Amino acid sequence: MRVQNLKEEIARRFGTPAVVVDLDVVERNIARVQALCDAVGVANRPHVKTHKSPLIAAMQRDAGARGITCQKLGEAEVMAAAGLDDILISYNILGEHKLGRLGRLLSRTKVTVAADNPTVVAGLPQAAAIAGRNLDVVVECDTGRKRAGVETVAEAVALARDIASRPGLSFAGFMLYPPESAISETQAFLDAATAGVREFGLEPRIVSSGGTPNLVDLGKIKGVTEHRAGTYVFNDRMMLAAGMARLEDCALTVYATVVSRAGPERGILDSGSKTLTSDTGGLEGHGLILEHPEAQIARFAEEHGFLDLSRCNDRPKVGDIIRVVPNHVCVVVNMVDRLVAVRGGEIVGEIPVEARGQLT
Amino acid sequence: MRVQNLKEEIARRFGTPAVVVDLDVVERNIARVQALCDAVGVANRPHVKTHKSPLIAAMQRDAGARGITCQKLGEAEVMAAAGLDDILISYNILGEHKLGRLGRLLSRTKVTVAADNPTVVAGLPQAAAIAGRNLDVVVECDTGRKRAGVETVAEAVALARDIASRPGLSFAGFMLYPPESAISETQAFLDAATAGVREFGLEPRIVSSGGTPNLVDLGKIKGVTEHRAGTYVFNDRMMLAAGMARLEDCALTVYATVVSRAGPERGILDSGSKTLTSDTGGLEGHGLILEHPEAQIARFAEEHGFLDLSRCNDRPKVGDIIRVVPNHVCVVVNMVDRLVAVRGGEIVGEIPVEARGQLT
Repeated sequence: MRVQNLKEEIARRFGTPAVVVDLDVVERNIARVQALCDAVGVANRPHVKTHKSPLIAAMQRDAGARGITCQKLGEAEVMAAAGLDDILISYNILGEHKLGRLGRLLSRTKVTVAADNPTVVAGLPQAAAIAGRNLDVVVECDTGRKRAGVETVAEAVALARDIASRPGLSFAGFMLYPPESAISETQAFLDAATAGVREFGLEPRIVSSGGTPNLVDLGKIKGVTEHRAGTYVFNDRMMLAAGMARLEDCALTVYATVVSRAGPERGILDSGSKTLTSDTGGLEGHGLILEHPEAQIARFAEEHGFLDLSRCNDRPKVGDIIRVVPNHVCVVVNMVDRLVAVRGGEIVGEIPVEARGQLT
Repeated sequence: MRVQNLKEEIARRFGTPAVVVDLDVVERNIARVQALCDAVGVANRPHVKTHKSPLIAAMQRDAGARGITCQKLGEAEVMAAAGLDDILISYNILGEHKLGRLGRLLSRTKVTVAADNPTVVAGLPQAAAIAGRNLDVVVECDTGRKRAGVETVAEAVALARDIASRPGLSFAGFMLYPPESAISETQAFLDAATAGVREFGLEPRIVSSGGTPNLVDLGKIKGVTEHRAGTYVFNDRMMLAAGMARLEDCALTVYATVVSRAGPERGILDSGSKTLTSDTGGLEGHGLILEHPEAQIARFAEEHGFLDLSRCNDRPKVGDIIRVVPNHVCVVVNMVDRLVAVRGGEIVGEIPVEARGQLT
């Protein structure tokens, strides 16, 4: 009954689709991961790409996070303007436009950046010069994901030396995003890279690992000083599938209305790829419908979610409001300017997604 | 050289990724489709979901479009506030929140809406009552796509009669989105539905067809009075693949920087699923890189586009700025608040994507 009232109230005040966050669940998620980090003595540096909200970043900080991680310079600027401090930008920053902004940001906030190649390192002194202070740089290392990061220990050591040799730059350590259950490979890489830089008198003060799924292995890689997890704050269907969250840990749902039941085995939601996005996260179907878990959101048009109801006994009717746990929550938050915030089953306000739209 | 200068100027002023629109190409696209419509005597009612910009909608109107099509009530509100008139909202509108807004919109603008079921029709008189004037309603018919729309002629006729029987509603005609090359099936449906409603003294004043790929068949379905095409204004890799556009008809490109070359056969762009989106449009890879057409954007992280360079002889290096024609342009525009506008190879300003973020 309470859920039905909340649905009607959200539809009445905001219309659907509405992207709704339960702050009680958010707080539990924040506290749980902070406790995990505290238990193994690893600093918590949550990734704000998931929520893009200074308000939620402040909740994470106030619960004990050491600082925050941003994926874009623009995210870092928004967070810094809101008073968040100690920011790791886990991204290669390149080009005059961004180096100027990075310099101005560094002049007023503690910032660390990542680099995985000499071209990026060669540009960073410009930012330090603008700020008039040293810029901490971590070497991004790829221990198997084939994303960003140097692939060999020799490259990691060479890049660390390159950083240390540049005016205004300090080698700060290593940044990892280990593949899941690749602890021994990652440990071997990290140990060799650490030994390698020590030969040149360099010391990794920071060793940053990342990923919500990797929280199960927190504390297992020796030498890691801090962890960047993003998704845990809201969770999503990917985290459910990975066994990293239970349904009651999913803080964000998209409230949608069934707008058509054009055939007996199909229906249409008013949420398509412009709301839930086409990110599948490697899963079949797009999102879990809490009221009809056996329904499948089979495909999207921009404003239509096409439901396959063939496996449903209880089929939704036109006008029904349903709640969807999206496959990938980070990209859904990025679609909207505001999240509707609820607590104890009541609407308590709206949370601006302030760092959305910061393309650069 | 001119292209290289433009790239550097865009990177310097806006940073990358930047979503850039060539207004010369936009104007040519607008003129070409208007001429196609004029040649066969079908009114042009472009779909603004592609650009979400009143400025570009006004260009379409000034070139001869009869009115515009919107997929969201919020889009229609933004367009009406900017002075666009004669708006078809090609969507089932449901619920107190939206019906109130629809009523207020109708009180100041000519609006037509679509409906494909009796629940939607039953709600619409609320909007007409608020506006104090009649609301034109078209019956959405599905002639094979299995999207929105009634699937049978009998349902179409019954819904037309239902509309005509409601206070404040006028049956205005039919809305179709025919599958490509399904002219005879669509013609048969339309003829039967038209005959069906005429038996009850109803006349379809509007028969609206849609889709950029369907422009090749413009004029072939007898009885169609107007056409809704969206993508043609910018075009994209889907339209290239469908033979509906040449490269020089693609008005929108995403300027991106190569930020990593972590392995010899791979690279990373600063554009991921939060810029180019995961919409594949049924194609392999995510976007066409103009400078390296043999490169594949194989997959995305949120802010990373992972390049497979194995088929490239000329491989981009870190710092290179490249231009990407996205697979599906409508969803890319929806990611950003502003488009960078160029003309004659020069930056001429920014175009706000004013109707972005209108979730409802």
